Amino acid sequence: MTSARPERPNSLDAQLRNRAASVIPGGMWGHMRAAAVPAGYPQFFASGDGARVRDVDGRDYIDFMCSWGPIILGHRHPEVEAAARSQLDRGDCLNGPTEHAVDLAEKMVELIPHADWALFQKNGSDAMTTCVTLARAGTGKRKVLVAKGAYHGAVPWCSPSVMGVTAEDRAHLIYYTYNDVESLNAAVAEAGDDLAAIVASAFKHDLGIRQQLPDDTFARAARTHCDAVGAALILDDVRAGFRLNLGGSWENVGVRPDLASYSKAIANGYPLAAVTGNDRFRPAAEQVFVTGSFWYSGAPMAASVKVIEILEREDGPARLHAAGQRFCSGLTESAARHGFEVTMSGPPAIPLMQFADDPEALLGETFCQQTLARGVYLHNKHNMFLSLAHTDAIIDEALTAIDDAFAALARNRSADS
Amino acid sequence: MTSARPERPNSLDAQLRNRAASVIPGGMWGHMRAAAVPAGYPQFFASGDGARVRDVDGRDYIDFMCSWGPIILGHRHPEVEAAARSQLDRGDCLNGPTEHAVDLAEKMVELIPHADWALFQKNGSDAMTTCVTLARAGTGKRKVLVAKGAYHGAVPWCSPSVMGVTAEDRAHLIYYTYNDVESLNAAVAEAGDDLAAIVASAFKHDLGIRQQLPDDTFARAARTHCDAVGAALILDDVRAGFRLNLGGSWENVGVRPDLASYSKAIANGYPLAAVTGNDRFRPAAEQVFVTGSFWYSGAPMAASVKVIEILEREDGPARLHAAGQRFCSGLTESAARHGFEVTMSGPPAIPLMQFADDPEALLGETFCQQTLARGVYLHNKHNMFLSLAHTDAIIDEALTAIDDAFAALARNRSADS
Repeated sequence: MTSARPERPNSLDAQLRNRAASVIPGGMWGHMRAAAVPAGYPQFFASGDGARVRDVDGRDYIDFMCSWGPIILGHRHPEVEAAARSQLDRGDCLNGPTEHAVDLAEKMVELIPHADWALFQKNGSDAMTTCVTLARAGTGKRKVLVAKGAYHGAVPWCSPSVMGVTAEDRAHLIYYTYNDVESLNAAVAEAGDDLAAIVASAFKHDLGIRQQLPDDTFARAARTHCDAVGAALILDDVRAGFRLNLGGSWENVGVRPDLASYSKAIANGYPLAAVTGNDRFRPAAEQVFVTGSFWYSGAPMAASVKVIEILEREDGPARLHAAGQRFCSGLTESAARHGFEVTMSGPPAIPLMQFADDPEALLGETFCQQTLARGVYLHNKHNMFLSLAHTDAIIDEALTAIDDAFAALARNRSADS
Repeated sequence: MTSARPERPNSLDAQLRNRAASVIPGGMWGHMRAAAVPAGYPQFFASGDGARVRDVDGRDYIDFMCSWGPIILGHRHPEVEAAARSQLDRGDCLNGPTEHAVDLAEKMVELIPHADWALFQKNGSDAMTTCVTLARAGTGKRKVLVAKGAYHGAVPWCSPSVMGVTAEDRAHLIYYTYNDVESLNAAVAEAGDDLAAIVASAFKHDLGIRQQLPDDTFARAARTHCDAVGAALILDDVRAGFRLNLGGSWENVGVRPDLASYSKAIANGYPLAAVTGNDRFRPAAEQVFVTGSFWYSGAPMAASVKVIEILEREDGPARLHAAGQRFCSGLTESAARHGFEVTMSGPPAIPLMQFADDPEALLGETFCQQTLARGVYLHNKHNMFLSLAHTDAIIDEALTAIDDAFAALARNRSADS
């Protein structure tokens, strides 16, 4: 089965891929390499506007990846652009922070119940590494509990790859199973009197695995264990932060962390990450040395202040939830109409799409190629993301194309059988 | 002795500091905290323009920190701004990289003799961690040799602070003394058959220590050791990259690394880092998973392409060297006229200022306060940075203020004695 739009050897995308093959390892690295998306997907992009992205060959797509998370208000939201440009026009990276650093820290402390302070970085990995470092500094302990298979970044202590990683990089990690209290209890027991932190993602979003929201019992058990020995409960809110709850994603289960990491959506695409923490970890945060050349730059912080203002004003998480529900239920109903069983798991605003009996996501791959050919950019293995630019009209426009793609998939299936 | 401009409790800077004290640990973290500069220095900045920065209270300074390195062409260089804005106006962070990723990788491969490929990140720490990971992945070995006291980033394996760091984070590091071949030989011997990499900074730029350019013999010895066992020679060019030699800083000593890290100046303040490598480490670079949410964003790469173009056109490193020489010799001569002995060490474009018999840099601190009061922003402990916006006229304007500051320092000294 081939995409309705064949691969085009003379396309600008193909030309850029050929050039990249010489000067970029593997043609591209990391999560945005085209090898991670179905054949026929573009590697290179030109622009974004609201809920739409355009590839370098001028093809437009309704975008359900939102740059793999960062875009929460839609591409190039005018108010956010104006806020960022206002600082960029005066200078972004100076000899110290701008006033936006204080505005943003105040805003996050006001918004996030566990937060007594905030500090800022560039990558989600920066924020998670900082959280773990602060937990160890604050407790004087070493063991860090992480869920098996969870993604917390792409640096040696937590990377999904072990290429170039030494055993010592992970010497003090102990693994538990997300949402499994018994496995958490066992990991805590294994840590003995050396427990520095329990790390948990906002929800279970391991690649290609059915997503799970956090179980209340599990979340409370993690909190109780940390309280019992003074360890830090670290919430990895890099992927979900601001989409599910403006107070932090675990407000939805009533459990507050000691430290939390943010990145992706907090500045609508401007490069920024944040760590929030409570006063118990303030002394550690005052003493640990973490820094980066661009961590104080003003424009991303100005953007983030505006993002928060808009999300509050627009009741962001509720609207994203509703948009996600419209998208997810529309897609699964469309699938059923054409004889396919599709599950959308996890929070509707950050859904993972899986076809029944499709462990390699190959049917999903073909389906995604069919939707791409009809101007809808989906992902068959990684969770997707909704934004406030995903209005009912745009979601319905996408669902029409999606229904047509399911019809084509059904025709191909009967032709194959 | 007090600054000619007293601290102003009602200044906007003071108000922001008071607010920051509540919501940011220690009031500010990392290398841009005001605690790292003399009392009276502003914490918060409003804007930059060419060789000048303005603090939040509207005070202007001729800037010899260049945002601690990133600004190499001057703040808000119009051609760089235009290049970055051209992409920002279409979207920065999309579902994949833009064409600028290929343009930039090609440009770096063309410019840097050792480079067969490039990949991009956000922080200097990202680039250094990636280099070490690639060295281990490519060699299958673990030991990494680093110079005692060298700064390679602020993550646990290399941070200057050990707060929150475990012994295992540095289990496979072996330390040598920069420019000391015997100590390097001993470290290589200690690594035995497990040598993955020798890491060296472009030059010795440890905080508060007289800077040293790399010794040819030392650089060649590092290369020879790596060649003998197939280890990677990693050049940390984060601080110096593009200021000393567009082909990589060790072109000046005729030694080429296998892997090099870049950040700071490569995009004139836009957030970007890069790793370059040769084909021997291409397979490792194809397999290791390193990534970040904003690593593919187009505007910083568009900026970097333009930065390189301008540095080539303007003979950047030579002009920066000449500007640095004018600044350094003018300052030391001015010092001598007023009875002070000041050394400017390291490359003139990245000089460290030290007063004789001033181990705590206290005389330097007072002097910096005097120059700040006269509109010149210097640093008394960290190296400074020149940019192409530092014209002869601006340097001479700064030197006039500097001479006046030395005169005041001399008057204060005689008043004290």
